[in-house]
Amino acid sequence: MPQKLRAGLVGVTGYTGLELARLLASHPNLELVRATSRSEAGKRLSDLFPNLLQTAPGDVTLTQPDVADLKGACDVVFLAVPHGTAMDMAGELLDAGARVVDLSADFRLRDKDVYARWYGLEHRRTDLLPQAVFGLVELYREAVRGARLVANPGCYPTSAILGLTPALEAGVAETDGIVIDAKSGATGAGRGAKVPMLYCEVSDTFRAYNIGKHRHTPEIEQELSRAAGSDLVISFNPHLLPMNRGILSTMYLRLKTPMSTAEARALYAERYAGERWIRVLPEGVLPETRNVRGTMFCDIGLVADPRSGRLIVLSAIDNLCRGASGQALANANLMLGLPEDAGLSCAPLLP
Amino acid sequence: MPQKLRAGLVGVTGYTGLELARLLASHPNLELVRATSRSEAGKRLSDLFPNLLQTAPGDVTLTQPDVADLKGACDVVFLAVPHGTAMDMAGELLDAGARVVDLSADFRLRDKDVYARWYGLEHRRTDLLPQAVFGLVELYREAVRGARLVANPGCYPTSAILGLTPALEAGVAETDGIVIDAKSGATGAGRGAKVPMLYCEVSDTFRAYNIGKHRHTPEIEQELSRAAGSDLVISFNPHLLPMNRGILSTMYLRLKTPMSTAEARALYAERYAGERWIRVLPEGVLPETRNVRGTMFCDIGLVADPRSGRLIVLSAIDNLCRGASGQALANANLMLGLPEDAGLSCAPLLP
Amino acid sequence: MPQKLRAGLVGVTGYTGLELARLLASHPNLELVRATSRSEAGKRLSDLFPNLLQTAPGDVTLTQPDVADLKGACDVVFLAVPHGTAMDMAGELLDAGARVVDLSADFRLRDKDVYARWYGLEHRRTDLLPQAVFGLVELYREAVRGARLVANPGCYPTSAILGLTPALEAGVAETDGIVIDAKSGATGAGRGAKVPMLYCEVSDTFRAYNIGKHRHTPEIEQELSRAAGSDLVISFNPHLLPMNRGILSTMYLRLKTPMSTAEARALYAERYAGERWIRVLPEGVLPETRNVRGTMFCDIGLVADPRSGRLIVLSAIDNLCRGASGQALANANLMLGLPEDAGLSCAPLLP
Amino acid sequence: MPQKLRAGLVGVTGYTGLELARLLASHPNLELVRATSRSEAGKRLSDLFPNLLQTAPGDVTLTQPDVADLKGACDVVFLAVPHGTAMDMAGELLDAGARVVDLSADFRLRDKDVYARWYGLEHRRTDLLPQAVFGLVELYREAVRGARLVANPGCYPTSAILGLTPALEAGVAETDGIVIDAKSGATGAGRGAKVPMLYCEVSDTFRAYNIGKHRHTPEIEQELSRAAGSDLVISFNPHLLPMNRGILSTMYLRLKTPMSTAEARALYAERYAGERWIRVLPEGVLPETRNVRGTMFCDIGLVADPRSGRLIVLSAIDNLCRGASGQALANANLMLGLPEDAGLSCAPLLP
Repeated sequence: MPQKLRAGLVGVTGYTGLELARLLASHPNLELVRATSRSEAGKRLSDLFPNLLQTAPGDVTLTQPDVADLKGACDVVFLAVPHGTAMDMAGELLDAGARVVDLSADFRLRDKDVYARWYGLEHRRTDLLPQAVFGLVELYREAVRGARLVANPGCYPTSAILGLTPALEAGVAETDGIVIDAKSGATGAGRGAKVPMLYCEVSDTFRAYNIGKHRHTPEIEQELSRAAGSDLVISFNPHLLPMNRGILSTMYLRLKTPMSTAEARALYAERYAGERWIRVLPEGVLPETRNVRGTMFCDIGLVADPRSGRLIVLSAIDNLCRGASGQALANANLMLGLPEDAGLSCAPLLP
Repeated sequence: MPQKLRAGLVGVTGYTGLELARLLASHPNLELVRATSRSEAGKRLSDLFPNLLQTAPGDVTLTQPDVADLKGACDVVFLAVPHGTAMDMAGELLDAGARVVDLSADFRLRDKDVYARWYGLEHRRTDLLPQAVFGLVELYREAVRGARLVANPGCYPTSAILGLTPALEAGVAETDGIVIDAKSGATGAGRGAKVPMLYCEVSDTFRAYNIGKHRHTPEIEQELSRAAGSDLVISFNPHLLPMNRGILSTMYLRLKTPMSTAEARALYAERYAGERWIRVLPEGVLPETRNVRGTMFCDIGLVADPRSGRLIVLSAIDNLCRGASGQALANANLMLGLPEDAGLSCAPLLP
Repeated sequence: MPQKLRAGLVGVTGYTGLELARLLASHPNLELVRATSRSEAGKRLSDLFPNLLQTAPGDVTLTQPDVADLKGACDVVFLAVPHGTAMDMAGELLDAGARVVDLSADFRLRDKDVYARWYGLEHRRTDLLPQAVFGLVELYREAVRGARLVANPGCYPTSAILGLTPALEAGVAETDGIVIDAKSGATGAGRGAKVPMLYCEVSDTFRAYNIGKHRHTPEIEQELSRAAGSDLVISFNPHLLPMNRGILSTMYLRLKTPMSTAEARALYAERYAGERWIRVLPEGVLPETRNVRGTMFCDIGLVADPRSGRLIVLSAIDNLCRGASGQALANANLMLGLPEDAGLSCAPLLP
Repeated sequence: MPQKLRAGLVGVTGYTGLELARLLASHPNLELVRATSRSEAGKRLSDLFPNLLQTAPGDVTLTQPDVADLKGACDVVFLAVPHGTAMDMAGELLDAGARVVDLSADFRLRDKDVYARWYGLEHRRTDLLPQAVFGLVELYREAVRGARLVANPGCYPTSAILGLTPALEAGVAETDGIVIDAKSGATGAGRGAKVPMLYCEVSDTFRAYNIGKHRHTPEIEQELSRAAGSDLVISFNPHLLPMNRGILSTMYLRLKTPMSTAEARALYAERYAGERWIRVLPEGVLPETRNVRGTMFCDIGLVADPRSGRLIVLSAIDNLCRGASGQALANANLMLGLPEDAGLSCAPLLP
């Protein structure tokens, strides 16, 4: 058996780290050789995540993050650390010649001023922005192949961009007044100990948050403006679902001229023809988050509503897999010359 | 102790029947004396609903629905039977001189043609439409007081109408292009045995349904058109939440002229001044469905989004209580000359 | 209307505090006048718990705990602070002449050495142990009436003691080898920010904890030994359920001589005859936690299993209400000469 | 690439069918070629289960069950039909020379009288009982290899038998008085439309069922008696958890002579040395159902409780995978000479 390529994971203690480790456990060509954590160094990964007992990633001993070590030991390094921290570490790794997939927001936005406005930080590695590739494979596959630095997209943006790009590229919708009503499972909030994210604060209830001010707004606007060919402003409105994983974005467009559901479906099916992970659902079938659980699938449903002159686009992904770690792995596969879907072939798990 | 007034409940085996029974268990002035069911007659209510053991409603023996008996035994009759069935029974009861609160859709719509188009039935008691009062107490309190027939509003419409009426009455929002993205707990689907409503089909997942074609659309449009003073068309989009009770409607308006969140809040606070069950939340606080659980409260949050020129209105209710049985009870209280909030004074239960 | 008696609540920011506030919102004779918190003083209770907006308790402004102030302002003081802290505060309040209901474990155990062994503390107010009354109303009603200090029982012990007392008093079961397999909703863990209690760590999963070493063990043994008339040792085994409220204890006894389910039921029904909150379920009906949600009810189901010679007793309560705050309120009602069920008459809320 | 072996699935519309299809989607050596359903013939599997869109099993067209067709088209046939039905179909398939894995109870019990007593049926193919192999791979691996008919074990029995076998074989526990308190997610009840299994009847609540009379009792007793070397009777007590998948069995043994947790752990670790799917957890670590989600893992935790002289054994599995379809697939792999873990190598998915 040929030697596997080697992956490092910086910042392993959160849900995205856990998800990457899970995916790497059955990856035929890539193995986890480094997992770093400032607070848990010395433990094995299965001490933190007992689900990984008796799996290869579970046996990895956590170490302190060390750039030289990571460069020498890994063919690709995943950064799952907070924005602000990631940019420095990415910079050091790249300067050392490593390939990096950054799961933070630090390299997603082209415009450093937009970054500063939304993230409250001056970007310290703007020199890397030109080479950073936005890692949405259906849109930037070839660029990702040749990249040394991939900015892994945000979860909500992945759902929104995949869902709206065909309509905007085709110019069938007005670009002003777009509304995105997004709902996400609780893993999207991360694994930090905060009262609002306790079980009893999330279970059997539902709420919106960050209405009108969520940081994913500029990222979505950047890519949708690209698709539309002109700058646009959206209303992005997230909500917290009492469930673990999944995002459903219900998105409201105004059609320039009337269009039937079948016509909309044909447009999307053609735009995404051949894309293994996009499933444009049959007319009358709407997406459910569970149908994509644990996978890279993005399910898209379309409903033309003649009464209101709207096209309603629904886009479902798994926020942890397609919205973060699975997408990061697909990007790494491309960067390393592996099959894009290596390690990403399990079918969605349900119920 | 003065004799309690007497309530009858037709169609007791569903969740709205269960909720009415629960509320009547601690009502100081009204007691359940009749509970009817074609299939379960002869059993006690506590046989169907063991939570009601050793409560007064639990001891009621179910009977077959009989109009003369109901008229003689009850001061008010609640109908919790399907639309189509309700109109005939309501008619018979009214003809016999009874007071009726109908929880179905049969008397909510003023226009019988609209009813036929959305419910697929020719209305058989249009003679009663003029006297039917739409039972949303904040809007129609005085008319409810004098009514013999109250059409209890739908759950989604209650949330939407309460949430949008102030903005539309004040004329601050465009009346075209309104989007309502509504999310409801699973009791909204009723208690019938259907595979899509099994636990394993609803838990840990999220989906939309009936996009563009939900029957509550005309009801919402009827009342919002009234508030706006002109006919309008909305986009109403329901979703199923993995939880038991609660509705949150996130509603998107385009402001005619810019308005701050504080100004919007002041408008709403003034419109609903003195209304015991409307809570216009402080700026920066958004509604959660659990905060109104089991009660008549409607929590409204407002966010003005200058970037998109929108006012986002969030409206949370308990679909079973405020959206059905609690509201029916409040209507009955008014019809019977009782305090409006009799039996409706428990605080929201959480977690 | 006669003046209401006055209640104070020390340590209001947890779930038991929230539950007491909820219950007091509709108590006819007792109102919340003091709510203390070292960290949140100055805020209104509705700032912490928006469900209480526009309710009387919601308007209470939080203050720092002050013994003299509490004594002067309150007819009864509820302590919802951690064990170890409670004993000092209870002592000070009693010394000042106040009536105290302590929700902690500090005064539940008769034997200070047992307390020291299980809670790791030397008891600092053993002088108060003789007057402390174990606040399980079905067993100690008269003593509670005359008490100045009530030790509110633990949640798991409430379920276990109510469930097993009749069989042990009647001497129908062996006293060795008793197994209690208890399952509780997550509010039982409190409202502290801890990773293991995050939504994503509790939802859609199930686990045991503290097997063989839970602190409620000696409390259960104390009261069951009393019922049996001889010291006994149990195996108490708690588990964490993915739900908010509720405890179900499945308890395994070995019958001394064979007994039918009907005979067991008759024994229990007789022992608890007239007890408003104990519902010995009909043969063939087993308890469900939701059937007691938000109330003082304890539902008991019994199954005699001739194959194994066992009597299986199932006991369901709401851990927050009957297992903590509701029971505390019932105790306070007795201490204040109010009807025992004042403020505790709402029916169980479900679904 | 070598041709894949071919699998048929009779009775595909339930959760076990769905789970088998999911697993086959990424099986390197075995593909689904037949999926039968009396009611859904003609549809594609992805019409029933949209999660399987764009996967190989999703493209399979459902057919009516036909023995000759199944024999000709398949190398192995999985039966996921109700007990009573399965025995006839299994018989026909075996008579035709096929290999069969039966997921029903029909061939699990050695004694046809025991079967009759618990399942209320006279067994019609007792001639097949001698060749039927109980498909618990850790116990019967070699027999499964050579079998033509495997009786796939029940879900609860899998958890209980794996959990108790080492202690019973070693003779460290009394064989009388064993208590099994088992808790299962709702997929265990199947996918039939029944009111008690509706979302709103299962969510946020907990209950026991079939106490003292569950059909899995004789199956557990059969295998535990084998392990112990003498007939024994257990008390088996199932409960329904508000979650989708997973079983945790908490099992209570009385130790013959005192034993520490470490000693118990060593006994189990030795008994299961080399078994890829049994994880005897470190001392102090208890199993959680989510840690085995979607896999064949069985996690076992042990606690010796000197106070009560008991050994408490906790055993967690995924009821749909290890408790049904995954185990069936492992059995089929063995029967077909494939690697036992082919198609079963994904790591547990969580949260």
